[in-house]
Amino acid sequence: MSKLPVLEVFGPTIQGEGMVVGQKTMFVRTAGCDYSCSWCDSAFTWDGSAKDEIIQMTPEEVWERLNCLAPGNFSHVTVSGGNPALLKNLDGLLDIFEANGVAAALETQGSVWQDWFLRIQDLTLSPKPPSSLMKTNFEVLDDIITRLMDAGRLANMSLKVVIFDDKDFNYAKDVHLRYPAVPFYLQVGNDDTATENNENLTKKLLDKYEWLTDKTAADKDLNNVRVLPQLHTLLWGNKRGV
Amino acid sequence: MSKLPVLEVFGPTIQGEGMVVGQKTMFVRTAGCDYSCSWCDSAFTWDGSAKDEIIQMTPEEVWERLNCLAPGNFSHVTVSGGNPALLKNLDGLLDIFEANGVAAALETQGSVWQDWFLRIQDLTLSPKPPSSLMKTNFEVLDDIITRLMDAGRLANMSLKVVIFDDKDFNYAKDVHLRYPAVPFYLQVGNDDTATENNENLTKKLLDKYEWLTDKTAADKDLNNVRVLPQLHTLLWGNKRGV
Ligand code: SF4
Ligand code: SF4
Repeated sequence: MSKLPVLEVFGPTIQGEGMVVGQKTMFVRTAGCDYSCSWCDSAFTWDGSAKDEIIQMTPEEVWERLNCLAPGNFSHVTVSGGNPALLKNLDGLLDIFEANGVAAALETQGSVWQDWFLRIQDLTLSPKPPSSLMKTNFEVLDDIITRLMDAGRLANMSLKVVIFDDKDFNYAKDVHLRYPAVPFYLQVGNDDTATENNENLTKKLLDKYEWLTDKTAADKDLNNVRVLPQLHTLLWGNKRGV
Repeated sequence: MSKLPVLEVFGPTIQGEGMVVGQKTMFVRTAGCDYSCSWCDSAFTWDGSAKDEIIQMTPEEVWERLNCLAPGNFSHVTVSGGNPALLKNLDGLLDIFEANGVAAALETQGSVWQDWFLRIQDLTLSPKPPSSLMKTNFEVLDDIITRLMDAGRLANMSLKVVIFDDKDFNYAKDVHLRYPAVPFYLQVGNDDTATENNENLTKKLLDKYEWLTDKTAADKDLNNVRVLPQLHTLLWGNKRGV
């Protein structure tokens, strides 16, 4: 049975962003990423700083851990990263979820296709804007989105772009115009992932959220979109595992 | 042609709450409500204080006003109140929206059925908890939800309960358990709809949001639910027309 490189299992808590914002969920955070975004808020998943915390777990062990943390107290699990799309075999875990009536959500930047994408109830594709210093491979993203749409997964997928500046905003617009049928989310970037001054952070993030809503409201290319902050950051600042 | 009692037309802005939280949208606020909730944040729609601002508008006039405010700059309109379900004939306006590729959202407490509910893309039923001092007629609500579900509208509807205290929380639980298939939203109540001290209000609302997420996370009867604050209140406080 293939194992998963797990860094954190926590919850129940609230999904703070994206297509199921506010959803009560558990989190399983896996290690490893093929990107290295300049502002990555979970760099510990790939920069080596937490490598001693990675535990190789079978799907059964992940399931046990979830039930030990929250027996009977969840029906939704979010697999996050890093980039969980690097995991070739998530089917074992998804089998267990399915057998237990648990829905799975997952976010990936959209750099790799996996067949098990078709089994994710809430799949967020989050290509990275210029400020990340990464470069989107649009051929791969085209292919992923085509496969999902061909399989009738529109209600189970979304695109999300994190915005730090005007260039990111224009990138987001290009992405939305390229895939107009896909539910589209703009998200306020957090460029201060180190501060512990939460009141200050809240104010800064709400100011940026206002800036982003104003820009979106004024832009005719962005009529059918949703603009969101990260609710968990407003609640808990940069703390891990909440 | 029947006219609509319109109090405000504004936007584009962001829908701050509920099933399409974050959605770029226009607002059409209609006058009149059959309830008088103790903490109503739009009491001016029914308490007579803004009765001189009510304009009787034809659907065409509403459409003109929207396009005058935001030509080419919207594809989603939220009809709010008051209780817009008191409007017997919304079909004229919905016809115009449909002809122009515009989606309609609407929120009502669920005290009255209208056939045009079946034409609303994002319909929120928001029965009022004990703190409102209103009493839910569950026979009517049962009937509304049955009709919507029989028509296959699950993807286009949601239940939302605003929470101020423990009693409200238990009421929300009852509602969720009564209609487990309907997407369910818990929302933080704003019990200070008069203050202009926005920083203070933000802090208070985030504290209450944390209280509500903690309670929900701990409750096994509320596994498949979403918990949200009002984003517009975090952004703009109690200001009208944003
Ligand atoms: S893709 Fe995500 S996890 Fe990977 S570096 Fe970028 S932000 Fe971090
Ligand atoms: S139902 Fe809504 S508009 Fe009517 S009194 Fe209650 S909160 Fe106000």
